[in-house]
Amino acid sequence: MASNFGTLFRISTWGESHGGGVGVVIDGCPPRLPLSEADLQPDLDRRRPGQSDIVTPRKEEDTCKILSGVFRGVTLGTPISVLVPNTDARPEAYSEMETHFRPSHADFTYQSKYGVRNWEGGGRSSARETIGRVAAGAVAKKLLAQLFPGIEILAWVSRVHDIHALVDPTSVRFSEIESNAVRCPHPQAAEAMITRIKAMRSEGNSVGGVIETVVRNMPVGLGEPVFDRLEADLAKAMLSLPATKGFEVGSGFAGTLLTGAEHNDPFEIRDGKVHTKTNHSGGVQGGISNGEPLVFRTAFKPTATIAKPQETVTSDGHESTLAARGRHDPCVLPRAVVMVEAMTALVLIDHALRQRAQDCLPR
Amino acid sequence: MASNFGTLFRISTWGESHGGGVGVVIDGCPPRLPLSEADLQPDLDRRRPGQSDIVTPRKEEDTCKILSGVFRGVTLGTPISVLVPNTDARPEAYSEMETHFRPSHADFTYQSKYGVRNWEGGGRSSARETIGRVAAGAVAKKLLAQLFPGIEILAWVSRVHDIHALVDPTSVRFSEIESNAVRCPHPQAAEAMITRIKAMRSEGNSVGGVIETVVRNMPVGLGEPVFDRLEADLAKAMLSLPATKGFEVGSGFAGTLLTGAEHNDPFEIRDGKVHTKTNHSGGVQGGISNGEPLVFRTAFKPTATIAKPQETVTSDGHESTLAARGRHDPCVLPRAVVMVEAMTALVLIDHALRQRAQDCLPR
Amino acid sequence: MASNFGTLFRISTWGESHGGGVGVVIDGCPPRLPLSEADLQPDLDRRRPGQSDIVTPRKEEDTCKILSGVFRGVTLGTPISVLVPNTDARPEAYSEMETHFRPSHADFTYQSKYGVRNWEGGGRSSARETIGRVAAGAVAKKLLAQLFPGIEILAWVSRVHDIHALVDPTSVRFSEIESNAVRCPHPQAAEAMITRIKAMRSEGNSVGGVIETVVRNMPVGLGEPVFDRLEADLAKAMLSLPATKGFEVGSGFAGTLLTGAEHNDPFEIRDGKVHTKTNHSGGVQGGISNGEPLVFRTAFKPTATIAKPQETVTSDGHESTLAARGRHDPCVLPRAVVMVEAMTALVLIDHALRQRAQDCLPR
Amino acid sequence: MASNFGTLFRISTWGESHGGGVGVVIDGCPPRLPLSEADLQPDLDRRRPGQSDIVTPRKEEDTCKILSGVFRGVTLGTPISVLVPNTDARPEAYSEMETHFRPSHADFTYQSKYGVRNWEGGGRSSARETIGRVAAGAVAKKLLAQLFPGIEILAWVSRVHDIHALVDPTSVRFSEIESNAVRCPHPQAAEAMITRIKAMRSEGNSVGGVIETVVRNMPVGLGEPVFDRLEADLAKAMLSLPATKGFEVGSGFAGTLLTGAEHNDPFEIRDGKVHTKTNHSGGVQGGISNGEPLVFRTAFKPTATIAKPQETVTSDGHESTLAARGRHDPCVLPRAVVMVEAMTALVLIDHALRQRAQDCLPR
Repeated sequence: MASNFGTLFRISTWGESHGGGVGVVIDGCPPRLPLSEADLQPDLDRRRPGQSDIVTPRKEEDTCKILSGVFRGVTLGTPISVLVPNTDARPEAYSEMETHFRPSHADFTYQSKYGVRNWEGGGRSSARETIGRVAAGAVAKKLLAQLFPGIEILAWVSRVHDIHALVDPTSVRFSEIESNAVRCPHPQAAEAMITRIKAMRSEGNSVGGVIETVVRNMPVGLGEPVFDRLEADLAKAMLSLPATKGFEVGSGFAGTLLTGAEHNDPFEIRDGKVHTKTNHSGGVQGGISNGEPLVFRTAFKPTATIAKPQETVTSDGHESTLAARGRHDPCVLPRAVVMVEAMTALVLIDHALRQRAQDCLPR
Repeated sequence: MASNFGTLFRISTWGESHGGGVGVVIDGCPPRLPLSEADLQPDLDRRRPGQSDIVTPRKEEDTCKILSGVFRGVTLGTPISVLVPNTDARPEAYSEMETHFRPSHADFTYQSKYGVRNWEGGGRSSARETIGRVAAGAVAKKLLAQLFPGIEILAWVSRVHDIHALVDPTSVRFSEIESNAVRCPHPQAAEAMITRIKAMRSEGNSVGGVIETVVRNMPVGLGEPVFDRLEADLAKAMLSLPATKGFEVGSGFAGTLLTGAEHNDPFEIRDGKVHTKTNHSGGVQGGISNGEPLVFRTAFKPTATIAKPQETVTSDGHESTLAARGRHDPCVLPRAVVMVEAMTALVLIDHALRQRAQDCLPR
Repeated sequence: MASNFGTLFRISTWGESHGGGVGVVIDGCPPRLPLSEADLQPDLDRRRPGQSDIVTPRKEEDTCKILSGVFRGVTLGTPISVLVPNTDARPEAYSEMETHFRPSHADFTYQSKYGVRNWEGGGRSSARETIGRVAAGAVAKKLLAQLFPGIEILAWVSRVHDIHALVDPTSVRFSEIESNAVRCPHPQAAEAMITRIKAMRSEGNSVGGVIETVVRNMPVGLGEPVFDRLEADLAKAMLSLPATKGFEVGSGFAGTLLTGAEHNDPFEIRDGKVHTKTNHSGGVQGGISNGEPLVFRTAFKPTATIAKPQETVTSDGHESTLAARGRHDPCVLPRAVVMVEAMTALVLIDHALRQRAQDCLPR
Repeated sequence: MASNFGTLFRISTWGESHGGGVGVVIDGCPPRLPLSEADLQPDLDRRRPGQSDIVTPRKEEDTCKILSGVFRGVTLGTPISVLVPNTDARPEAYSEMETHFRPSHADFTYQSKYGVRNWEGGGRSSARETIGRVAAGAVAKKLLAQLFPGIEILAWVSRVHDIHALVDPTSVRFSEIESNAVRCPHPQAAEAMITRIKAMRSEGNSVGGVIETVVRNMPVGLGEPVFDRLEADLAKAMLSLPATKGFEVGSGFAGTLLTGAEHNDPFEIRDGKVHTKTNHSGGVQGGISNGEPLVFRTAFKPTATIAKPQETVTSDGHESTLAARGRHDPCVLPRAVVMVEAMTALVLIDHALRQRAQDCLPR
């Protein structure tokens, strides 16, 4: 349903940006996984506002509390409930939202769909909703690491506006990504991106870009042949994140400029195992992982909330203008990196558990 | 699960390319919808091989039979089972597949995942699996037309290889799309595409491209705020189709080159209703349709099956070469148009029924 | 999954008896339903320990807090998160549980299934888990009342041990049920039941019994023909409650002693509408409600936790004895009445929303 | 949804009693299970009409065909589609059904719910729908036997009308059950049951009764703690079968007449393993199997279709009378035994696969 994700490792997120808090219930996490709040907090910190000078300066600590499902340091196999209270709500910053629909926001569509909306913030469309995903993603990552030692999920900002960073997905390292505020592992590009983001903020404008993701040391055989193809579930996962407009795996849209003879990935034997010489497929063939690095990219639009005055209409049907107040990200990508990682981990762990169930007869 | 799609209007497809047939069970179709095989066959004919000289010459009539769920010309509200027998199987064309993995096909991943595969054809990875989707999509289209008179779902080939057709999604017509074999509504571009496809076939090669889709006269309010965003479900639907590598909605990847001030869609009152002046959002904001045309694009890679010899490995672990025999599409896009329409219709009808259920209290 | 219930009105409960608290996330509740904690608390109070002198004397206030999904007194259509903190945990009362499996409890099966368990209480097998269900059930009841004015869900204790109360389900009133501590609307039987329960408690023993439920002014047409028959979903709902051992609808097990000619419910026209003269069917035919009172009964075993010493084994495989300490219900039925009502309401609202979605074409 | 059952081993049945046929799609069956029609036909034969002189004399061979999911004698891991064509439809036997609602049948509720119904037979309420379940159940049984060698699922008629057979569930054998037409392993009781059924048929009447089920050599740890308790899923499975009115596990309704001290099952060490001395629990504690024999009973009402004239109403609202023509079972229980087995196997295999997925970390 609307706020559920996953078949076996299943999460339910809840919470508005302004209200009692946000959280997630994780159902289907296997028992006996060592787990505590300390496993979740680092990713929550990478997601939270105020972590650098290019993100929104809101002061939210986003300290999580595990309310159930863990006993004496290990998971019980029962639902894990994670709560993060809201602390820095300033509803007064949103008073105009009661009557004005913010352009390219969810105000109008929520009002139309539900006939009511929480206008003291963005409600469920707020990036704050992703806290639950990031917390659940941290659990998924820890479990993946136990099941597939060596697996690495890495995401980074590969483009901001028109500034592109050439990064090799087969060798990029986490420390390189985390070495700067924009989470781009290419130092020069990162610097240019930061400069651009600050320039945009100073003029009350915003920018978008692209996040690239790689999963290395992927197990072979994850994904299903038809509707639940690995790339289909990843596409859904990415497009479910706020502000996303596109997804591509492997060669993606550019791959359509190649012929079949150029695009096909020839097989070879390497180190005694079947590999492909190229990886236009992006690690997935027929919906199922082939063991090569899983590579995909996600497009994020420029932040809709900008300080420049914009044309809009009011809830009672008059044309008007609106200039955002409040504190907003001029570019969502640096904080979105960890959301992308989380959704990736959630898709992979779910397919891993499904494959484990299905692959039960002797080979 | 793997072969199910949808929450309320739910389909289960089954069948391999070589075997007793393919089909679909549609569960959750409302009762009292007038329906017969004549409603399904036109779309199946638009999907089938041999329909023109730029697609595979296989001779499959793909004649469908409704086995249940319809009584005296109307749906019963019970599962609709649709069967299309297989007729033109030539397993001898596939004998090498028993031992050789076709590059960029699902042979290796199926063998790895399942430890067994139907090598007399592509099994579930065959485009033949989409027959069930197209049949179900035809039912979904008919139901959508009853619930939302005037709704139009149109898909067309907007690019083949590097040949791009500039088409206005707000005015393109079905007759224009169907006026040529490649299903591109731009006559000059269509001609060039056909020439390119034939050239590729004659050299044993293949090409891919992009299909664009528009839904006009969209109802407002379809889609859910978080995981089941309309664009997320569409992305999953598209990436679940064979040979797809990317999806973008509205401005998509190109939109990341705009600033927020350029990208935001200002609201205005037009004809007494709230509209946006531009449509970078592609008809969806915060995961929910806003009534503007729903616009998205899907990337299809060049057909993996080509006549040129390719490097590969055998199932017993030796390097070898392989040249496809059999009869294949040099470009899947002309036949994929109707698959894209079908998946779009399935996503929309499911969200329409969900919204109908949820919107049950007086406004 | 394990801790989810419902298709459209979907709940996820979480929480152990000892830990941070218990709660529920309700996903799919329609927007614009007036709702506050005051709607939930009365049923939580009817469920809580310490409410009378025949239930466990534990002092838990079970005060609920709605953390999301409600704004200015109405539902938003987004997930409703309800939290009830744990307050009266006395883990020392459970110290023996670390090593001893309580007979007819879940200790052994949890330990076997998960390889770990929260032995500071019953974990998820505790009746405390039902707090989330009761809270969600209160929301479901309120929504049902809006959709079907006049609908009444009544449950009562119809038998304790061998003391049976003859109650007419077509006329029993809520005030009669609530007029005594055992929730039996037959005053003399109620008195005898209370006496029996107290006698059992004083000897460190326990009793079970039967709860009967009626839903009056039922809408026609709820339920699905095959797997999701209304009685099938009710059976699952009831058997999912702790301590239940049986379910029967309408004539139930006793109905098998009648012949078809005796058992069939003849149709007649009454007040201009189709009715049955008898109601052996219990309000459901072919899995679908027929508008007659929905009548079913649920068997609850005697409480497993008793003060008498019992034979058991330890987690390291030795035979031993165990006598429960702690504070327990000598009979779960008085508190289970509201759990039964809640599960009934959850089943009905889910089917009501499903039917609303499906019945979308003009008749 | 309505016609789906199971989470990982998931079936979708389809088909009306009169139409193109009936069938099932099994999604999630593991690959590499040896399977052919010969594995399904024996159970279909035990279910089919005309198998003895106490069931309906309709002549339906119910010959099944596997259309997909099996290749060279083993499952592929992809959906298994099973088709059984309808052969002996005699719609003329049902002509009165167009206008008359059969008492205690689904005619009135289907007409009310859907506004349309297939009156040439019982539509989805026909026992013919269970063909798909029995076919899927046969697959589930075969898979269970591979995963848990020695597991035995046995069901038998333990009561017809007031004739009760005392049978020991720990020792009853399949050959005893199958030794007579009524499928009661107690020879004298069986003879009395057969006599009673024939007497009922000769007077145009019908009888019901109780089917008891045991699963021996049960694995420990199947079932989930809350909503998907093993007994809850079994209750749903049984109540989803046509003509069922009740379900009880272990001590069931009678167990409520015991005190806790009498009812609790003391643990002991036997053959080096934890066992219970008694089995009032019926093999399940806290929703999870404990390794003792799983024992439950299902109540079936007397067949609703009887030859005696009955009072009813017509679809246009007039009172009338109706006497069934056509060929019907005077007692459904002998044929229902295999349906009960099938649903039991479907519940167990689904929970077995779920447990396999969840129990993935080292103990």
